[in-house]
Amino acid sequence: MTKNLITILSSATQTVEISRDNPTVIIGERINPTGRKAVLAALQEGKFDIVRQDAIDQVAAGATVLDVNAGVPGADEPQLLKQVLRTVMDVTDVPLCIDTANPIALAAALSTYEGKALVNSVNGEEKSLAAVLPLVREHEAAVIGLCMDDNGIAATPEARLTVAAKIIERANKSGIPAENVVIDPLALTMSSDSNAGRIALETIKLVVQEFGVNITMGASNISFGLPDRKYVNSAFIAMAIHAGLTCPITNPLVTEVVTAVLAADLAMGRDEYAMRWIRAYRQRQKAAQ
Amino acid sequence: MTKNLITILSSATQTVEISRDNPTVIIGERINPTGRKAVLAALQEGKFDIVRQDAIDQVAAGATVLDVNAGVPGADEPQLLKQVLRTVMDVTDVPLCIDTANPIALAAALSTYEGKALVNSVNGEEKSLAAVLPLVREHEAAVIGLCMDDNGIAATPEARLTVAAKIIERANKSGIPAENVVIDPLALTMSSDSNAGRIALETIKLVVQEFGVNITMGASNISFGLPDRKYVNSAFIAMAIHAGLTCPITNPLVTEVVTAVLAADLAMGRDEYAMRWIRAYRQRQKAAQ
Repeated sequence: MTKNLITILSSATQTVEISRDNPTVIIGERINPTGRKAVLAALQEGKFDIVRQDAIDQVAAGATVLDVNAGVPGADEPQLLKQVLRTVMDVTDVPLCIDTANPIALAAALSTYEGKALVNSVNGEEKSLAAVLPLVREHEAAVIGLCMDDNGIAATPEARLTVAAKIIERANKSGIPAENVVIDPLALTMSSDSNAGRIALETIKLVVQEFGVNITMGASNISFGLPDRKYVNSAFIAMAIHAGLTCPITNPLVTEVVTAVLAADLAMGRDEYAMRWIRAYRQRQKAAQ
Repeated sequence: MTKNLITILSSATQTVEISRDNPTVIIGERINPTGRKAVLAALQEGKFDIVRQDAIDQVAAGATVLDVNAGVPGADEPQLLKQVLRTVMDVTDVPLCIDTANPIALAAALSTYEGKALVNSVNGEEKSLAAVLPLVREHEAAVIGLCMDDNGIAATPEARLTVAAKIIERANKSGIPAENVVIDPLALTMSSDSNAGRIALETIKLVVQEFGVNITMGASNISFGLPDRKYVNSAFIAMAIHAGLTCPITNPLVTEVVTAVLAADLAMGRDEYAMRWIRAYRQRQKAAQ
């Protein structure tokens, strides 16, 4: 029997349990200036209205964790990330995922955050492990481990499993238990490599079999460059949930993807009497009126 | 490594290879009077126009095998099934799946059919095994084995695996190799049992691990009684393909389900350069004009 570790995240007032025995946790991806010009411009001007609205809308659409990224080129990221975090904590109660490549910004954000955050992310590079794991340990946070290292992104599921194993082992040595490591297999775009989806799915399967840890993934990159992306993303996220994905990072405002997640939970026996499915259907009906 | 058996079906002029190394084979379900009043009425009157149109439409929509059922209450099924088969063979070239619970009709149909048919179906009941397997052997056909027996439909994946094992073993003893047995795990409705999807998916996984045979399934029953069925069916069929489903019996005229199958094949690395996905997208665009 595969073990199913439970990752617990919290805000000041709420707790979220990520596990293959629970419904899938959607981590809302929208509070991120990368590729979103309106967010970038607002953050550059020190305006946070769009962040507030993104936070409220994503939680209303079903996100139970929000990713927060304040990576604005040229800005004081430690300061800005703290401001954005406070803004989000003021309007929502869900646990947050602190998304930065800057260890100083990460330290500042973890000091500001109230609760147990998810850190996005560490990877298998020595530099990343050395900078991120001590902070995660110190603040008793959880951390996303990306399946890449000093050699880049491995081409095979087996090689990605090796990177995941290294991250989990190094986390353990730093005093972070496996249940606080969430692995991201990395889903590359299928338009440039037809095997990108298969490799990500197979990596999830291997990592879950070996370690029973929770799995996250950005689930929209996979369809970049293809037509009718929402259908590709919907099928892929349902298959990834079947493989063991537990907390995708995605845009909950895309109805098709959220619907695929709810349908996948139903098919996995995680929606007793289909109550969540039926409630979501009624909400869609109401929203369409 | 799991073995992947290849099931070959043929018509007079075409061959279809069912395997986890190939794109999913859609078996069109529409030529069936059960639950379709128009088909029932037409067959009762000896009119076959609707059958012709169903055959042509389903192949155009992507079915590469067609299920043919002529179970009209009170009719001479052996005679009617032969007529319907001939009608379908006149307008399409795809291999056929002969769908009857009547051994006399099955014998008549197999004698009429030109090529290697798929027989729908045998199950683990002694009576069924004794009646169907000798006919399948005699005509060198392939056969669908339903995971049910004299005790009904088992409640657990492990018990369904046992029934599948029995059918495969008895087929072998009758001279039918495992590659000519296609197992149906049976997907019951999730509205009456929240675990119905999970049990079907887990059964597929176990049967594939153990025997490497091909897997079929009626993929729409699962959502009976639920709202927005097409979304449930789409997610479920993608997940089932990930589990090992290779030849679902479904309605290819439901765009969402066919699209989910194409997206699932893409995610499984069975669509090089996404060529099938892009071609299908262009066809949808053209059809919408």
